[in-house]
Amino acid sequence: MSHNSFGHLFRFTTWGESHGPALGVVVDGCPPGIPLTEADIQPWLDKRKPGQNRFVTQRREPDQVRILSGVFEDERLRAKFGGQVTTGTPISMLIDNVDQRSNDYSDIATLYRPGHANFSYDAKYGFHDYRGGGRASARETAARVAAGAVARKVLGEALTIRAAVIQIGSDAVDRAAWDWEETARNPFWSPDADAAARWEIDVDAARKAGSSLGAIIEVTASGAPAGWGAPVYGKLDADIAGAMMSINAVKGVEIGAGFAAAALSGESNADEIRMENGTPVFLSNNAGGVLGGISTGQDIVVRIAVKPTSSILTPRRTITTDGADATVSTKGRHDPCVGIRAAPVAEAMLACVLADHMLRHRGQTGR
Amino acid sequence: MSHNSFGHLFRFTTWGESHGPALGVVVDGCPPGIPLTEADIQPWLDKRKPGQNRFVTQRREPDQVRILSGVFEDERLRAKFGGQVTTGTPISMLIDNVDQRSNDYSDIATLYRPGHANFSYDAKYGFHDYRGGGRASARETAARVAAGAVARKVLGEALTIRAAVIQIGSDAVDRAAWDWEETARNPFWSPDADAAARWEIDVDAARKAGSSLGAIIEVTASGAPAGWGAPVYGKLDADIAGAMMSINAVKGVEIGAGFAAAALSGESNADEIRMENGTPVFLSNNAGGVLGGISTGQDIVVRIAVKPTSSILTPRRTITTDGADATVSTKGRHDPCVGIRAAPVAEAMLACVLADHMLRHRGQTGR
Amino acid sequence: MSHNSFGHLFRFTTWGESHGPALGVVVDGCPPGIPLTEADIQPWLDKRKPGQNRFVTQRREPDQVRILSGVFEDERLRAKFGGQVTTGTPISMLIDNVDQRSNDYSDIATLYRPGHANFSYDAKYGFHDYRGGGRASARETAARVAAGAVARKVLGEALTIRAAVIQIGSDAVDRAAWDWEETARNPFWSPDADAAARWEIDVDAARKAGSSLGAIIEVTASGAPAGWGAPVYGKLDADIAGAMMSINAVKGVEIGAGFAAAALSGESNADEIRMENGTPVFLSNNAGGVLGGISTGQDIVVRIAVKPTSSILTPRRTITTDGADATVSTKGRHDPCVGIRAAPVAEAMLACVLADHMLRHRGQTGR
Amino acid sequence: MSHNSFGHLFRFTTWGESHGPALGVVVDGCPPGIPLTEADIQPWLDKRKPGQNRFVTQRREPDQVRILSGVFEDERLRAKFGGQVTTGTPISMLIDNVDQRSNDYSDIATLYRPGHANFSYDAKYGFHDYRGGGRASARETAARVAAGAVARKVLGEALTIRAAVIQIGSDAVDRAAWDWEETARNPFWSPDADAAARWEIDVDAARKAGSSLGAIIEVTASGAPAGWGAPVYGKLDADIAGAMMSINAVKGVEIGAGFAAAALSGESNADEIRMENGTPVFLSNNAGGVLGGISTGQDIVVRIAVKPTSSILTPRRTITTDGADATVSTKGRHDPCVGIRAAPVAEAMLACVLADHMLRHRGQTGR
Repeated sequence: MSHNSFGHLFRFTTWGESHGPALGVVVDGCPPGIPLTEADIQPWLDKRKPGQNRFVTQRREPDQVRILSGVFEDERLRAKFGGQVTTGTPISMLIDNVDQRSNDYSDIATLYRPGHANFSYDAKYGFHDYRGGGRASARETAARVAAGAVARKVLGEALTIRAAVIQIGSDAVDRAAWDWEETARNPFWSPDADAAARWEIDVDAARKAGSSLGAIIEVTASGAPAGWGAPVYGKLDADIAGAMMSINAVKGVEIGAGFAAAALSGESNADEIRMENGTPVFLSNNAGGVLGGISTGQDIVVRIAVKPTSSILTPRRTITTDGADATVSTKGRHDPCVGIRAAPVAEAMLACVLADHMLRHRGQTGR
Repeated sequence: MSHNSFGHLFRFTTWGESHGPALGVVVDGCPPGIPLTEADIQPWLDKRKPGQNRFVTQRREPDQVRILSGVFEDERLRAKFGGQVTTGTPISMLIDNVDQRSNDYSDIATLYRPGHANFSYDAKYGFHDYRGGGRASARETAARVAAGAVARKVLGEALTIRAAVIQIGSDAVDRAAWDWEETARNPFWSPDADAAARWEIDVDAARKAGSSLGAIIEVTASGAPAGWGAPVYGKLDADIAGAMMSINAVKGVEIGAGFAAAALSGESNADEIRMENGTPVFLSNNAGGVLGGISTGQDIVVRIAVKPTSSILTPRRTITTDGADATVSTKGRHDPCVGIRAAPVAEAMLACVLADHMLRHRGQTGR
Repeated sequence: MSHNSFGHLFRFTTWGESHGPALGVVVDGCPPGIPLTEADIQPWLDKRKPGQNRFVTQRREPDQVRILSGVFEDERLRAKFGGQVTTGTPISMLIDNVDQRSNDYSDIATLYRPGHANFSYDAKYGFHDYRGGGRASARETAARVAAGAVARKVLGEALTIRAAVIQIGSDAVDRAAWDWEETARNPFWSPDADAAARWEIDVDAARKAGSSLGAIIEVTASGAPAGWGAPVYGKLDADIAGAMMSINAVKGVEIGAGFAAAALSGESNADEIRMENGTPVFLSNNAGGVLGGISTGQDIVVRIAVKPTSSILTPRRTITTDGADATVSTKGRHDPCVGIRAAPVAEAMLACVLADHMLRHRGQTGR
Repeated sequence: MSHNSFGHLFRFTTWGESHGPALGVVVDGCPPGIPLTEADIQPWLDKRKPGQNRFVTQRREPDQVRILSGVFEDERLRAKFGGQVTTGTPISMLIDNVDQRSNDYSDIATLYRPGHANFSYDAKYGFHDYRGGGRASARETAARVAAGAVARKVLGEALTIRAAVIQIGSDAVDRAAWDWEETARNPFWSPDADAAARWEIDVDAARKAGSSLGAIIEVTASGAPAGWGAPVYGKLDADIAGAMMSINAVKGVEIGAGFAAAALSGESNADEIRMENGTPVFLSNNAGGVLGGISTGQDIVVRIAVKPTSSILTPRRTITTDGADATVSTKGRHDPCVGIRAAPVAEAMLACVLADHMLRHRGQTGR
């Protein structure tokens, strides 16, 4: 019942604040014998890391991961697995915080920032570590990405998890122009090059105006077999929804047709099935790959809504911690659209949910 | 890690299939000394029960609940609490299944029904109890409503949880006409009488056409204090999202501005704060009452999308369990819009999440 | 984190008080496709049930179990599995309380009985259901036995779990005379007929003297493969210790050589290994089948100490709930040696721990 | 359901192997506002650390702890709490491994050592990190001691947890000579100076003979209020039993009279009660401070049996990982009696169980 742990059989626990010495994650329950080195994890962290272009925060963090436990290598294992492998015991990974600017936090310490967690943290704990957002900082998501990298190794290469930003502000991609490879070619994870070009202008404009933009992200998993998940509080989509909503700034989650399903007729919504070459084939995917909380073998399709960054230059009305009216304007290095960097985090969380359900399914059914 | 349990400190476990002898729920962790009799639970079950009007399934289930454990009464307790109270030990509640028609299930047994869980259950377990949907039946939600009734007693009367259906098909209510009391006056839980009148026609038309309709439901909790919830995988909104997505037929969940937040600017989205009569007051509620996963004291506002009923008369393409192309048309007693009866279930789930977080918060902080 | 649930993947939740209408258990996580009817469970309950001879309580409870959910049968399943099987969904089992005598509980209600839980329950909850011990009654163990019967089916017939009472009062069995079959031939679960004969006299004497006797029970599991369990807080023996100590009146648990291991030398204690017919064979079993929290393939050997029944006729000094000195003497139908009926309960708990670890091991390693 | 986590509301997760770069623990659920610095933790680690005298392993580990997260300090907090305090978010603590000798492990890698976990680890995982025992090394217990130090701060100074070694080999202390202060004056945690003098000779003799000795430890908690714990699988003593049995080399756990209770009569065993100065006073403590799984306010008294160190110089029969008969003799730096260093670990585990139950009790009952 740990507040800072996620998952059941594939389970990880994260720790660390924005301005502490480091942050990290302990992954427990990983199967043994899975090849794993820092090189398997670092590329995913690199995709998430700040300072890569002018559309994200300019904080400079190398986000270099170190594995401190849970892996082993000797001659016999090299011969059998090709190198260092997981042992089945906890994998501790640590990322140093490097670029914590020694700001003067006296402002932030005594002002509640609209849209931020400092108001609610104070209500809960009586006080909080306000330096850079403390535990509520998006830096925590680096730990998720590290855990997700391990989850991908557990899931294997037959399963592909990919995210795309499909809307920034109110400007959505053209789904007809969807190209997964394009997501790696622009700084926005956009599957549509034209949208990316438009967003470049929009995000620049928002940044310069001291404002910020929200986003919608679509994450999919291809290659998951039918049968993962469980009724009724262990539903695959329930766990996905919880996982996604736990990501900073996420305000909505939908599976398959999602909110649009409300407006479909029963005939349009329920995905029909036909046999093709001896295999059941669904003729549509409004279900988003999940029926009754259990995967169907179709692509698992999830969308999340990310609110615009709350830390903006434009002055906002607020109160002080002492209960006086005030105005706040957040200077410093912030993402003009946090949704962009949420894409690799959403991938990581989906990977972790699936790895957990793979093990849970195997535990109960032996398959 | 029970698939059929929900919650941590306030935790319930449900069991039962549509066509077994009974279904039930065990509520564990309830505080002692809370007045509780069947009369506290039955009204909530009555709101959910089938057969109340022509817009819901015509299955006739009295849904009479019996408390089998966890309560006690003697003279001293009557004097102190006014009657029977919870003891702090597990509260077992049982509801008999009465109206299981002895249908011939041979059709359903060998046909995968589009939009139904029988395909995925078979993939998981190798077979399943197909009578009336078995464990995937919406009858399971009666157990949730019983648990939710206990949760309401734990939360106390200062906290009000209410649901309204705000859209059926593509026809939404007029939020300007919102009247909570109206939700009890029409069979659709509509807060807008005009919308209810239109839906009557729509739902009748769908039923007669052998079709069905989806819905969007809004659930709110008023009176929850600031401070419930916890970073970062124990977020209040993450638990709400999981809870809601675990309800049958739900395909999307959003908190506060939800998906619309993506299109807001940073200035519009982050709720400003002002002191009023010595109390912090938020000037809007795009956050939906949750910041950083912790409640702010504002109304907690959740919306869920419910897909249209998959059991429809209109013939659909499908396959048999033996892998042959086939057509299926579901006769029998089905809700033309399952979303309607999901409203009390969504209320119950929100109540359970809040009761759990109330106890978790108290455990950690002593407040 | 349910107080009334046990296990992780094979997980059960019990409910019910001594004098309520019924008691029961919900088993969650059971694999699908396991043949299961009431006839698989009843024999184990019959072994535990009261009133079978003069050495146990004379309460007359048929302890007839009913399965209310989680099983299914149709022609195809009969052909494949031979009859009704588990579906993988929660198995709810209910046992009616039949012989709750309408005693006058006014005495018990206001007197703390030495050795009983009413003092501590009141300290925790402020009051409690005192009729027949309420939730603290040994009747709860019937639910464990029902869960254990399901666990045995999960484990399969290659794994044998057996308990023997090896000491009553200070009189121990002669291990040289050990005969497992004898345990079924005497009312004491004694593997030594001579000890049983002596105990008959001792237990009669204790009963007549208004006193009671303690006992030591040995439970073993033969046939468990090497590899179940996990470091370091998921140790097989740690879970066994918790399981056993959760049984009413148990005050001690040991594995293998147990407390005697403290007095062994390192050479004597560590079990040597030799190859025999291509298989590793341990030359002794001081480890009790567990090394580093993981099974070795040897017999798992557990011993528990059960205190003498606290409900005795002999008057004892105590206080009233109002804090006045008093004397209590417990009339009514009590076991003169509760340890006897703890034997089937200890078997059941060991079965449940092993079933859980079998699934957990399979989940993580795929074996 | 993490294998490497312990507790529910006060919950910790440990990681690290004997010969990795470091080991550590993440404590989650700690209440906010508790003063905590490394200086609160280091003394407890110092008590456990190796190399302090000739009766324990000569490995030289400073066991210097660093707190990496979960604490905060500013002027306001200094004024209110006197210094750095917990924030309520995860407390990550790290201890570097310093003295990992670059031994040649080729022997250990291919030989199963009697009494060691390498046989069972291989059975479970297919291989394991054999350097210094890997995850099964007693070095892991340093992480427990760090967690226990935090737990003590949560419990506060009114609650005292102390351990004493009461038997080494077959030589027990004289309980009449018990002096808690003596435990700090001799290297054996003995409350009896005479016993300590005898043990000095015994342990030296065992070490020189290439042998080792077992031990029995008694741990007590004084000052815990009545009411902690819960029926029936959340029993305080069940959690204590699991906690203790999870410590390396522990083979038995007993509460209060423990195994001796089996030989007591009902009259002798059940602790009588009398009022003294308006307070209930138990006239004996066979219950060990727990009735029905709930604390009574008496001292909580636990004893554990620790087997003799399995790593001994004396050659023992064993097999190789390839299944050939062999002989093993363990050179290197080992404790001649691991029981000695288990005393601070047992204290730490008891502290953690109590802190968890304090929060769980508060969560459910508000007290």
